Amino acid sequence: MPDPGPSPLPPSAIEPNPALARVLRGPSGLGTAALSLARREELPLPPVAPDPEPLEPEPPEQPPAAGGTPIPGLYYHPVPEPDPVRVEEVGRRIKRWAVDEAEVYPPEWEDQFDGFFVGRYMVACHPDAPTVEHVMAAARLMVAENAVDDYYCEDHGGSPVGLGSRLLLAHTALDPLHTTKEYAPDWALSLQSDAPRRAYASAMEYFVQLATPTQADRFRHDMARLHLGYLAEAAWTETEYVPQVWEYLAMRQFNNFRPCPTITDTVGGYELPADVHAQPAMQRVIALAGNASTIVNDLYSYTKELASPGKHLNLPVVLAEREDLSEREAYLKAVEVHNELMHEFEAEAAQLAASCPDPRVLRFLKGVAVWVDGNHYWHMTNTYRYSLPDFW
Amino acid sequence: MPDPGPSPLPPSAIEPNPALARVLRGPSGLGTAALSLARREELPLPPVAPDPEPLEPEPPEQPPAAGGTPIPGLYYHPVPEPDPVRVEEVGRRIKRWAVDEAEVYPPEWEDQFDGFFVGRYMVACHPDAPTVEHVMAAARLMVAENAVDDYYCEDHGGSPVGLGSRLLLAHTALDPLHTTKEYAPDWALSLQSDAPRRAYASAMEYFVQLATPTQADRFRHDMARLHLGYLAEAAWTETEYVPQVWEYLAMRQFNNFRPCPTITDTVGGYELPADVHAQPAMQRVIALAGNASTIVNDLYSYTKELASPGKHLNLPVVLAEREDLSEREAYLKAVEVHNELMHEFEAEAAQLAASCPDPRVLRFLKGVAVWVDGNHYWHMTNTYRYSLPDFW
Repeated sequence: MPDPGPSPLPPSAIEPNPALARVLRGPSGLGTAALSLARREELPLPPVAPDPEPLEPEPPEQPPAAGGTPIPGLYYHPVPEPDPVRVEEVGRRIKRWAVDEAEVYPPEWEDQFDGFFVGRYMVACHPDAPTVEHVMAAARLMVAENAVDDYYCEDHGGSPVGLGSRLLLAHTALDPLHTTKEYAPDWALSLQSDAPRRAYASAMEYFVQLATPTQADRFRHDMARLHLGYLAEAAWTETEYVPQVWEYLAMRQFNNFRPCPTITDTVGGYELPADVHAQPAMQRVIALAGNASTIVNDLYSYTKELASPGKHLNLPVVLAEREDLSEREAYLKAVEVHNELMHEFEAEAAQLAASCPDPRVLRFLKGVAVWVDGNHYWHMTNTYRYSLPDFW
Repeated sequence: MPDPGPSPLPPSAIEPNPALARVLRGPSGLGTAALSLARREELPLPPVAPDPEPLEPEPPEQPPAAGGTPIPGLYYHPVPEPDPVRVEEVGRRIKRWAVDEAEVYPPEWEDQFDGFFVGRYMVACHPDAPTVEHVMAAARLMVAENAVDDYYCEDHGGSPVGLGSRLLLAHTALDPLHTTKEYAPDWALSLQSDAPRRAYASAMEYFVQLATPTQADRFRHDMARLHLGYLAEAAWTETEYVPQVWEYLAMRQFNNFRPCPTITDTVGGYELPADVHAQPAMQRVIALAGNASTIVNDLYSYTKELASPGKHLNLPVVLAEREDLSEREAYLKAVEVHNELMHEFEAEAAQLAASCPDPRVLRFLKGVAVWVDGNHYWHMTNTYRYSLPDFW
């Protein structure tokens, strides 16, 4: 694997993906925009209605455009600055939900919550959502997923011991228990008994109002995958095992952003049919997109994780240990792994779009690509959480 | 909860479910047979082809009809004796697969393997399979699921510590890794590196040849649920926690037979459409059927688990500890829990059949009910593994 060394942004990092753009151009495609650049007015399905809910009467002052430096050599696509009015409104509503309605975080953690910039994140990832409430469905799930990770796995008292029980009981907030009349009430009460379960239960209740049953089933499956991923990572933490690189990549395909991009159609107000979603080619595209997005997290959170107590597994750390590389070499190799996953995602998406030009398929593929780009944008601009290592 | 006391079989235990039979009778239904009594010639979809593969030229001598005593007071339906020729042939092929082809068990464990009676189990559960190879798809998965449980979780060196890693890596034999060219070969090799992964990989390879992509996706989801269930149980084993009854029932909805009845359409050679499968009413029916079947396992394996080292959680044990009941009282209460789940399953299935009389829905519901009955039959007749406690 060549060492890319200190390098300026490659030209490809600021250009749309030509293969995908070529496939999607033309009368039956998504228009002339690159797949990775979301433009709401070009999306053919369904007609995007104006938000029926009134926003704040006076739009708040626009925050300055977000800053942040991309990782040198990383293959990514820039996104248009997300709609600041919508960012502000989602930020306002999600804080009200998380602090007051679902009681996920106590009021004294508001600063930390603000530092997560959920509004900017979700609006950047879902520019084609027909209403603010559609974005909110994604935002609540994102906050709930983070709450489970924070409280059960990581920052706020999590532990690998007993995690299998906590995650399964929380999973029943998404995938309900069907039991006898004597025991069902105890279970129902349990869903209100801690912040992660309150968050899952409330976020899911809103989500299923927008989702079809097959979309809800897809989400449950992706969340079961996520929980399996958490549990594999926890097993390694407990046994102090540093996995082989392929083992780490396998775990990370499960402990993965996947549940976020795969709701792009629900949040967009349409449905990718279940039989198309299940096709091996689509499953591969989704997995590659999730894997690239997740390695982005490993790369941007590298210094944050180094600074936190205990050994935190991420791709550079595993590469350094398993392949006897310096920290810098390992980090740069992890960038290459990411770039290969991104290129493979885009190539496979282009091929699928060409072979299956149904407008819902094209819009879904575009939605996943936009999510990947929005996720990178959020990581890059979230200088409250992340800073880059000094490797260039 | 009244103590049912020593009682003869209630009349309902040997009669078909009248509600379901009523719903399914008539010109648009499944014929005049009760849902729980499978008769291949009455199934409308698809036409059942004769097995294209030649069986043994001379049918082997028929084994004597299986014996076994049902649990007094248990609500269940008897099944017709499974086709002995097919039982023998599945038994022959599955042993060849498990010992020689996938190398799941060493030849010296053949006795133990024979004592599992896979052929009788799977033929009883899938009487409408159009060919022996369709039954084999179910049989391989059943053996593979047991191998993972045996090797990773229980009898043959399993441990709760590190289980999250082992199960996730095995899960990639069902739900493949998509990664870079450098690391993909290591992963592919890993699928041949131990018996559980060889079993999953081979069984899945056969299964996807019969299943549609949505059926394969459904199976993966149910297996992710199963693995989450194993991990919750393992967490309790490790922390020596005896769960509350509702917590146990929640875990057992995941550590559950569910992946077996939900392939009834694949094994039957037809497909329940994904959008019907995902309906909340169908999800409830499936969960209730799986839960009743799984409590049957708790009840029949009670003395086996008591005799094995360590505390093995099952519903009677949890009820005794959490509700301060005698072993006998707890066991009899567990029978009542089972019976309520069975009645609820049948009532909900009848309601769904009435509201959605599509022939595939009716056949699927019948297939699940037949699986539940076949599962009870196998437990009752497997006197090699199971014996009843002395509570009556």
